[in-house]
Amino acid sequence: MRVHIVGLGLMGGSLAGALARAGCAVGGSDPDAACLEEARRRGWIAGEDAAPGPGDAELLVLAMPPRPVIAALPECLADAAPEAVVTDIASVKAPILASARRSPRRARFVGGHPLCGSAGSGIAAADPDLFRGRPWILVPGPDSATEALERLRAMVERIGAVPATMSAEAHDRLLARVSHLPQILAKALARAAERGGVAAELKRGLFGGGWRDMTRLAASPAALWTEILAENRAATRDALAELRAVLDEAEAALADDAPDSALRAWLAASAAAGKDGREAAS
Amino acid sequence: MRVHIVGLGLMGGSLAGALARAGCAVGGSDPDAACLEEARRRGWIAGEDAAPGPGDAELLVLAMPPRPVIAALPECLADAAPEAVVTDIASVKAPILASARRSPRRARFVGGHPLCGSAGSGIAAADPDLFRGRPWILVPGPDSATEALERLRAMVERIGAVPATMSAEAHDRLLARVSHLPQILAKALARAAERGGVAAELKRGLFGGGWRDMTRLAASPAALWTEILAENRAATRDALAELRAVLDEAEAALADDAPDSALRAWLAASAAAGKDGREAAS
Repeated sequence: MRVHIVGLGLMGGSLAGALARAGCAVGGSDPDAACLEEARRRGWIAGEDAAPGPGDAELLVLAMPPRPVIAALPECLADAAPEAVVTDIASVKAPILASARRSPRRARFVGGHPLCGSAGSGIAAADPDLFRGRPWILVPGPDSATEALERLRAMVERIGAVPATMSAEAHDRLLARVSHLPQILAKALARAAERGGVAAELKRGLFGGGWRDMTRLAASPAALWTEILAENRAATRDALAELRAVLDEAEAALADDAPDSALRAWLAASAAAGKDGREAAS
Repeated sequence: MRVHIVGLGLMGGSLAGALARAGCAVGGSDPDAACLEEARRRGWIAGEDAAPGPGDAELLVLAMPPRPVIAALPECLADAAPEAVVTDIASVKAPILASARRSPRRARFVGGHPLCGSAGSGIAAADPDLFRGRPWILVPGPDSATEALERLRAMVERIGAVPATMSAEAHDRLLARVSHLPQILAKALARAAERGGVAAELKRGLFGGGWRDMTRLAASPAALWTEILAENRAATRDALAELRAVLDEAEAALADDAPDSALRAWLAASAAAGKDGREAAS
């Protein structure tokens, strides 16, 4: 499979490494020349003569944030080879599928979203094993060619990721709950603690692993998350409203005249919900 | 130092192992005979003849949940040797210090709380390195003898933990924010997602590391957390109210007519708050 990846940051770089290792011919482009050079040095993309370009690859991957994908997609579809498949890996899908729909070549686009990441960023933190065993959501539009979906699935399986297909709306609804709302919560928790007068204790490291886990996402880049949340704000607002309703119940249990039985009931119900996710993850 | 530990679960067992390794004479008691046997087998507590008992140890550690400590403390203080120091490791401090104050031997009690833990439980999951490099909060009451505080500090340093002293009120205020509220949030997030219609996707493991981190605490035992939250509910309610105020702002940013600038401002402010915790933790 001949693949070209636009954007060789953490995700695009990791994908280049994974595909090269799987025996694919990989080309890449990035506005940062040093990044491109590093990808070549690692052997993740081929030399200029051998590397598939955006116009002759069988699979073109846009490894960029949501808005650059939305903006570039019609032109990328127009410039790609007629039988090429174009995909992306951004965290929001409905506005990207909407952008593809504006192209006469829309049958060649299938959205994608690998559910993994890393605390690092850039090609320096890239890892060809990043996708192994992790879900990769495939998001065909109503007009996507079945054969395009199958080509993307073949790529995902080739690097050891686990494909799962759903609509853009189902994807955005799911991600609002498992990613976009958690992002807001991690930041809110850190900010609330600071306002609650324990900033000095936080600076001294006076917390346990639970706090570290729950606030890890708070250091994510604000510019990227502004895009993601703005592009998925309807579903994120719904998810936030659902959470607030559950927190109302926690507040009521804490204020109850019989706090023990109220808290135990609230905790037991919620623990059951949490367990599903843990079991699936292990 | 001759130490007796009451309760040889995850925390008490780990402490027995850490102290034994540091050359202390350690005795222990536990209602579960198999657990006591396992602690002996591992060499973490001494044989019955050599082991310090609750009446002749220099340091008596109550490694039990908050309410058993509250209930047992007056009798433990009465039965301990006159010059012994008594401490505990529970997650809430004000009601425990209040219990100690009811004893004529209150000068011999200093509360404690190691800020670490493990996903496991029981002596099977115990680890003598659990406390190494981790904070251990020392909580003297107004009547605690200075020499008692120093003896506890010496034990904490001996096993490689990092002592930090604060009042019971400051401890409970801090833990409400860095532990008790996060516990509620992890459970609320899991429950809200289930209500939001993505339970099937959670069962299939369709989420990334962020979700796993943010919901890990949701599997904590409901009985223990009922005690902790009930015993610290005033501070936990305050912390929850602070969080809800920050979530109001997030909701307003998502609903703003200019969502980009509103979200960017909200995310940037909160990211700064999160960063402190991360830097301290690294």
